[in-house]
Amino acid sequence: MTETTATPWTRAGEEARDDDIHSIDLWWRTANYLSVGQIYLLDNPLLREPLTGDHVKPRLVGHWGTTPGLNFVYAHLNRAILRRKQPTMYIIGPGHGGPGLVAASFLDGTYTTTYHDLSYDEAGLKRLFTQFSFPGGIPSHVAPETPGSIHEGGELGYALSHAYGAAFDNPDLLVAAIVGDGEAETGPLATSWHSNKFIDPATDGVVLPILHLNGYKIANPTVLARISDEELVHLMQGYGHKPYVFVAGFDDEGDESIHRRFAALLDEALDEIAEIKAAAAEDPDMDRPMWPMIVLRTPKGWTCPPEIDGKRTENSWRAHQVPLASARDTEAHLQVLDGWLRSYRPEELFDEDGAPVAEVTAITPPGDLRMSATPHANGGILLRDLTLPDFRDFGVDVPTPGSSPVEATRVLGTWLKAVMAANLDNFRVFAPDELASNRIQAVLDVTDKAWNAALDSDDEHLGKRGQVVEMLSEHQCQGWLEGYLLTGRHGLFTSYEAFIHIVDSMFNQHAKWLKISREIEWRRPIASLNYLLSSHVWRQDHNGFSHQDPGFIDHVVNKKAEVVRVYLPPDANTLLSVYDHCLRSRDYVNVVVAGKQPQASWLTMDEAIFHCTRGAGIWEFASNVPTGEEPDVVIAACGDVPTLEALAAIDIIRTELPGLKVRMVNIVDLMRLQPSEEHPHGMTDLEYDQLFTTDKPVIFAYHGYPWLIHRLTYRRNGHNNLHVRGYKEEGTTTTPFDMAMLNDLDRFHLVMDVIDRVPSLGSRAALLRQKLDDRRMEARRYARLHGEDPADIRDWVWPDARGLSDVSAGVSATAATGGDNE
Amino acid sequence: MTETTATPWTRAGEEARDDDIHSIDLWWRTANYLSVGQIYLLDNPLLREPLTGDHVKPRLVGHWGTTPGLNFVYAHLNRAILRRKQPTMYIIGPGHGGPGLVAASFLDGTYTTTYHDLSYDEAGLKRLFTQFSFPGGIPSHVAPETPGSIHEGGELGYALSHAYGAAFDNPDLLVAAIVGDGEAETGPLATSWHSNKFIDPATDGVVLPILHLNGYKIANPTVLARISDEELVHLMQGYGHKPYVFVAGFDDEGDESIHRRFAALLDEALDEIAEIKAAAAEDPDMDRPMWPMIVLRTPKGWTCPPEIDGKRTENSWRAHQVPLASARDTEAHLQVLDGWLRSYRPEELFDEDGAPVAEVTAITPPGDLRMSATPHANGGILLRDLTLPDFRDFGVDVPTPGSSPVEATRVLGTWLKAVMAANLDNFRVFAPDELASNRIQAVLDVTDKAWNAALDSDDEHLGKRGQVVEMLSEHQCQGWLEGYLLTGRHGLFTSYEAFIHIVDSMFNQHAKWLKISREIEWRRPIASLNYLLSSHVWRQDHNGFSHQDPGFIDHVVNKKAEVVRVYLPPDANTLLSVYDHCLRSRDYVNVVVAGKQPQASWLTMDEAIFHCTRGAGIWEFASNVPTGEEPDVVIAACGDVPTLEALAAIDIIRTELPGLKVRMVNIVDLMRLQPSEEHPHGMTDLEYDQLFTTDKPVIFAYHGYPWLIHRLTYRRNGHNNLHVRGYKEEGTTTTPFDMAMLNDLDRFHLVMDVIDRVPSLGSRAALLRQKLDDRRMEARRYARLHGEDPADIRDWVWPDARGLSDVSAGVSATAATGGDNE
Repeated sequence: MTETTATPWTRAGEEARDDDIHSIDLWWRTANYLSVGQIYLLDNPLLREPLTGDHVKPRLVGHWGTTPGLNFVYAHLNRAILRRKQPTMYIIGPGHGGPGLVAASFLDGTYTTTYHDLSYDEAGLKRLFTQFSFPGGIPSHVAPETPGSIHEGGELGYALSHAYGAAFDNPDLLVAAIVGDGEAETGPLATSWHSNKFIDPATDGVVLPILHLNGYKIANPTVLARISDEELVHLMQGYGHKPYVFVAGFDDEGDESIHRRFAALLDEALDEIAEIKAAAAEDPDMDRPMWPMIVLRTPKGWTCPPEIDGKRTENSWRAHQVPLASARDTEAHLQVLDGWLRSYRPEELFDEDGAPVAEVTAITPPGDLRMSATPHANGGILLRDLTLPDFRDFGVDVPTPGSSPVEATRVLGTWLKAVMAANLDNFRVFAPDELASNRIQAVLDVTDKAWNAALDSDDEHLGKRGQVVEMLSEHQCQGWLEGYLLTGRHGLFTSYEAFIHIVDSMFNQHAKWLKISREIEWRRPIASLNYLLSSHVWRQDHNGFSHQDPGFIDHVVNKKAEVVRVYLPPDANTLLSVYDHCLRSRDYVNVVVAGKQPQASWLTMDEAIFHCTRGAGIWEFASNVPTGEEPDVVIAACGDVPTLEALAAIDIIRTELPGLKVRMVNIVDLMRLQPSEEHPHGMTDLEYDQLFTTDKPVIFAYHGYPWLIHRLTYRRNGHNNLHVRGYKEEGTTTTPFDMAMLNDLDRFHLVMDVIDRVPSLGSRAALLRQKLDDRRMEARRYARLHGEDPADIRDWVWPDARGLSDVSAGVSATAATGGDNE
Repeated sequence: MTETTATPWTRAGEEARDDDIHSIDLWWRTANYLSVGQIYLLDNPLLREPLTGDHVKPRLVGHWGTTPGLNFVYAHLNRAILRRKQPTMYIIGPGHGGPGLVAASFLDGTYTTTYHDLSYDEAGLKRLFTQFSFPGGIPSHVAPETPGSIHEGGELGYALSHAYGAAFDNPDLLVAAIVGDGEAETGPLATSWHSNKFIDPATDGVVLPILHLNGYKIANPTVLARISDEELVHLMQGYGHKPYVFVAGFDDEGDESIHRRFAALLDEALDEIAEIKAAAAEDPDMDRPMWPMIVLRTPKGWTCPPEIDGKRTENSWRAHQVPLASARDTEAHLQVLDGWLRSYRPEELFDEDGAPVAEVTAITPPGDLRMSATPHANGGILLRDLTLPDFRDFGVDVPTPGSSPVEATRVLGTWLKAVMAANLDNFRVFAPDELASNRIQAVLDVTDKAWNAALDSDDEHLGKRGQVVEMLSEHQCQGWLEGYLLTGRHGLFTSYEAFIHIVDSMFNQHAKWLKISREIEWRRPIASLNYLLSSHVWRQDHNGFSHQDPGFIDHVVNKKAEVVRVYLPPDANTLLSVYDHCLRSRDYVNVVVAGKQPQASWLTMDEAIFHCTRGAGIWEFASNVPTGEEPDVVIAACGDVPTLEALAAIDIIRTELPGLKVRMVNIVDLMRLQPSEEHPHGMTDLEYDQLFTTDKPVIFAYHGYPWLIHRLTYRRNGHNNLHVRGYKEEGTTTTPFDMAMLNDLDRFHLVMDVIDRVPSLGSRAALLRQKLDDRRMEARRYARLHGEDPADIRDWVWPDARGLSDVSAGVSATAATGGDNE
């Protein structure tokens, strides 16, 4: 699987050979023929019989418009790779050009070896054509099923982010990335050009963006195809690129002449890249180069009929999808289709059996150098386990529950630093300028933040090479990380909880990719995509309402249970245990939500490991009834702030309602709440009942939107007794406890909930209820007067820890902690 | 409220007057002083006593870094507006610069008239300072509470989209938009520069982007501040702008000299804009101009202490938030704060009472020309009702249920065309290149798609002026529409259902804005934000799995019930009725999901109106038990494809299980399912029971993820009998019925569900169950063999409609309908 014959970054040395140019033309015609065939034909794949309507698929679904351009570039890259022995990946922004990539991998021989029923003969061709976008067949997009692909391109915008993610720490790899001019209008793509400021020419690979201006989207022209060449060139220069502009297909120039021109241009660009790589090897501190990129202007639907039914089709948006929708039923259209297919002269392309003739595949690179066979696109093959230092060594000493207040994510950062130090070539952390704000900046002790733009004397931790990548774009962070993971490496993405919604749709696509990949035998498992969400909903002191949203969890759990995991560790030791688990896992998306503000620790490291292994359990230190015995009420918590408030509520109950038997349950692994038949982590009903009882009131303090807990548990026994407090979109505030009060998640409210649900408590409890209500109002008045929470709340400490030094376990004022970047 | 004194687009005529320059300097110092005061001070607002720790807030929360730059631009815009009488809005990308905008509106007098307890004296100043980012006070961001704002800027990326949205159809309006260099790294912002290709100089307003390069984000330098001036200028030229570069604050140049330079540069830019406007008035077909934009390079935290604790603070990321976090407790920091505040020389800025001296406010424009008082930023003031043609006139004639197969969105399009024709100056439709694909292109009969880039002879419906705006960026569509609505106009955004998740986070911010605005008395209601989501999960024939996601509904219902509405009309007439309602509504987000494929109609227009008014109801034509009588089973449906499958299931039941009493319930308004205490549209339990019974099995065919129905109904009677079928992330397929089968939402499965839940049906039903299971398998095999669904399924017609002409009510092959752009 290694690229033993590779000689990366060599120069061309000579002009393209005539036989290569001829092969390129044959290869291109073949790939185009196979693409049209996939979209239209059920049978008669070599047109050796007269074409009839019966040979045409009854439902024509797929996209032609972008495909010939993709094939054109593939053909030329093949020659360049063959002659230079350059390891290369191909990323297709306009992923609906699926037929082209399937055709290419078929011609590479990769498809036939991967899917054994596709032989190199007429029967194989028929099967190749039929299966495309057909029930039980393959998707119309460049999907996980497509060899050589890490990028579906169904949702547009991420081609360059994925390409750069693949290039990080792969110094020998060229990533040729097609950017469609439709995709180029998306926001994520528009900023991803700037990725070149985060690439080290010496230690990273190279991305060659190819902006394919075919001029049209579904039903409109594209912006970049309709600005002047001068503006377009300025734009690319402004993005830090040196553009090579190529125009073809608009006049009657012969194909081989076009190919000769493009081969020369590609050689020039690749030679320039080779020179940059050589210069960087010599001088790692060289100034950021203007990396080559290619502007490829061609007609949309290039080589399809110029007109259909009197309307321009080639070089029109009409070529976007299926230009001849009625070819099966309309004789005139059938004739047009016949002429179109025959225009590629299939008789020159296939031998007697139906196999491509030798000249077609003469430019196919050998072995792993074939883009459809590169191991980088099946990253699990290259995946090495992380060297993980023992997280136990980084834990917090917890002499008693409620002691050792720490910033949980900062503690995690000390372990991540050791992880980073041990895995400097295949582990990266991505953040949208929130690494330090989320408190994991200890990693910067052992690596820099990648930065290949100007430096200032006051800069800290910026360097050409760095395993932390920060740009203020969640899209870029997500896209880079996906590209990095899909090519067989490890990493995490830390973000503010609220703004991770910015990548909701990217998460969808990655989860779908994982779901399908798990069903494809030759796709090997990759490292999980790990989120660390901090600066969460309950502590937006600096920013307020716009920064409060815990709904990413809700979004994530809509995806297939087999690929999503959600963790809400209540303190630092549990966070360490959870994250160790996440970094070892494969093929999941792990969502971890953890606070960055100083808060008490509850569990020793051994207890934390035990608790995280169970995922949910009874906290005996906080319960006043033995585990085997039925309580009067269960107080459950999930999330760090809810756990704090739940324990403070239990403290009140112990003092004020000493006879009440309370069980405390904590949930780390949210998926434990689901039925076992719905999620692999789900508890059985018996396990659930042992925690929550079947008939006692359960007061559940939850980090997010309360109804998610109901959604997960509605089939459980005693669900009618479950009362959930969580975030309910009330929140412009600047003090932590006021925030909890606004959403009725505070300790006083939780005790009032208990009183409301245990009628046997009687009149004394009714008096207490009034007192607690008064204390809430008093706390609110205090905050409004003084701008901070009352000291007895702010500095509240769990009873066991009182009297110890350094145990201000409550929600401390940020002013006192200083340096709080948000 | 009208800008009676306005003389838009006049030229300056002369250099800035000396007294204006002096006032600008005073105004800027005052605004900066008030900004620092808001962040730090509880008391002693005029520093007339020695500053002590007690005067400093206990929790220092807010952001200084961006604020002085915002104030600088505001001061200069004030002069320009005053001298030119130019109606102007100010949009602040870096919205965390809230203190600056509050200071500005305070100096404008707007704040004092809006919030009467803020008087122009020392007591008013104390209150102004205290309330900032304080419990019970105002947010730290440019929030709905801030006069003159339509843009919070809490989540970054949308400043220019909002600005252009405000400029559309406002030919006299200048929108000055600050783009922070942090924000400039986001994807949405990076593509939004291209908005200038969608602006008509003659009939739209003008956006003046001001890229504020203060060099740093939270903890990093910014990309655009660290590329060469040459690259930056190329980038802006590539975006179609003429950049004016201004640098200030890095040396000892006197303030008035800086102000003189910037006033001249601003005059030059505004004069050039005035010339463009004059040219456009003369020649509406003029070529797209290179619109001026300003690059403003200043230190971050400009005018704060250069160093604190020996570390660079001004011109550093350290100035981002609160540079002196310990001013209350640390004497040295208190001294620094004192010096900082006094550096603005407050004694020159305020009179004896504490009111700003006359020279400070000498550059304040009059009345509505004050940016903080512009009616455009309180769009409800300017809102005119749409002229709505009677949608009944556009309905489908439905002689019997199951007849009149139509593409629902295409029918809607005919009405939208009439709406457009009647409201050509205040109604817009936004789409990411999906208008035609979603079938509402009839609107193009009466207006063009806005397009101010090059034209080609083959282009259709493109023009400089057009009320349809299409760019392949969901972010742009959402941002433009928000800006358009917030300035008092109407519109809708049509998108593929799956990819509306791209704007999940933007929806969050808009919903939060609406929620808060409803609580602010002076904010007047604005038109609702209307989505039309088509090309939905069940019909992704061309695209498959990556294009399937019905989860936006789940996302939306997490927001405050008072601002969100979700509709799933089952046919064309109900879609018309729903959309008429949406276009009349105010202050909501309306999500409407509707199919674009040919499908039968079920209700006459009168029935549709009745049904939509109820939101959910029994369909008697499909029930075989009178409404007052208890059924054996309820079959419910929500969504067009589920309704079709549910009715087909009932057809099978009528034939095969004639004795079974079936009630059919259809839900249009999803929020009807919620408890009445949770959502204004929620049914009472009595209403719910009347539809669903309290104890009969309910088989519910739902458009989206099934658990959402459980979440909405878990408190209802009989919830244990509710069985929901919906989308479960299974779906690579190319035929409609195969898609339903993959997700167990098909007619056969629904009948099998009934059999499983009505045990009294006995052995005959068990045989039927086996037969239905066989038919499913047979349908699947057929699709895999022929590439289309079996004819009896594809062409199934509701019994009442059989024998009528033109009633192919099933899910037709797209090939047969042609022109299916996806």
